[in-house]
Amino acid sequence: MPDQHSEKKATNVHWHKGEVSRTDREQLLGQRGGTLWLTGLSGSGKSTIAVALEQRLHREGCLCYRLDGDNIRLGINNNLGFSAEDRTENIRRIGEICKLFVDASVLAISSFISPYREDRDNCRRLHEAAGLPFFEVYVNCELAVAEERDPKGLYRRARAGEIPDFTGISAPYEEPLNPDLELRSDLLSLDEEVEQLLSFLSQQGIRKL
Amino acid sequence: MPDQHSEKKATNVHWHKGEVSRTDREQLLGQRGGTLWLTGLSGSGKSTIAVALEQRLHREGCLCYRLDGDNIRLGINNNLGFSAEDRTENIRRIGEICKLFVDASVLAISSFISPYREDRDNCRRLHEAAGLPFFEVYVNCELAVAEERDPKGLYRRARAGEIPDFTGISAPYEEPLNPDLELRSDLLSLDEEVEQLLSFLSQQGIRKL
Repeated sequence: MPDQHSEKKATNVHWHKGEVSRTDREQLLGQRGGTLWLTGLSGSGKSTIAVALEQRLHREGCLCYRLDGDNIRLGINNNLGFSAEDRTENIRRIGEICKLFVDASVLAISSFISPYREDRDNCRRLHEAAGLPFFEVYVNCELAVAEERDPKGLYRRARAGEIPDFTGISAPYEEPLNPDLELRSDLLSLDEEVEQLLSFLSQQGIRKL
Repeated sequence: MPDQHSEKKATNVHWHKGEVSRTDREQLLGQRGGTLWLTGLSGSGKSTIAVALEQRLHREGCLCYRLDGDNIRLGINNNLGFSAEDRTENIRRIGEICKLFVDASVLAISSFISPYREDRDNCRRLHEAAGLPFFEVYVNCELAVAEERDPKGLYRRARAGEIPDFTGISAPYEEPLNPDLELRSDLLSLDEEVEQLLSFLSQQGIRKL
């Protein structure tokens, strides 16, 4: 237990390598872990895609775990709000959790608006520094289409001024500059989206070994 | 995305049930997930036991993931120190992460001093509210023995006044009142400890189905 006199609070700690390695776990499961990071506007279809992809991969025998704004916000991040600072901490923690799952050799599927480029890039860096696969998938849907869908009625409330800092309306969404995969969810069917993701994962060697 | 006008910050969100259930994942892996929460003094042997148990379970084909103070403190909890408040938040987050792993049907093995009874009880409640197994394992070692071992030289530094709030010396350790399992690590060999844990997990139906 370190002292508390340095700037970085948790000091004098070292990564515990443990005797069972990530490679051992990958061999046990017959799969490589990785993070599939879906980003896009509210209503762009991230969660629908995540659920459909998870079903397909599970049927192939691939262990996935899906993290989304709703279940994470009710648990570990229930002490965070929606200010810019809290959004950044929200995404940071999620990136760290994905990294743990990948280290456990699970395919982590995260679906969060994650509007800030820097926050997403930080998650990528966290993974890359540990040699863990991270793929940014831009679920690209025109705002007008997402707003028309408005599955939770949130755009309507945001337009009415009832929700401050709503991404796409009163808060920015910073598009990925160089996503690993882009899905035009306003043009493609769900099946087409899932097929593109499955092909992508195969190319990356992430599906069953 | 909820508004920010309520006391509980993340409101209007609901648990996303998803189409692949925990039961589906358990069937895929042939195991039930659960959290094995090792608690005890610094130097009591928690991490050594966790590593040895993980090896044995992995050899049986059981997917485990080990969380400990070191790897968590370097990652998701690198913005927390060692004040009472930060220790509580540290343990809360770890409890939530364990819960996610158990939901993924992984056996989560956590080894943290976790000195406060209330913090540990909160982790148990988190799991129980979701119908997830949680087992508190008290790694009980007399302070004199732990201090004599002093594997990281921390007791020596704490006695010299170099580390404030050191559990057992200048900060409290609240013993479990009713642990699911107690290991007298100052009396048992490592092999004996691991055997007791394996028997316990079998009784609980946590090992391979």
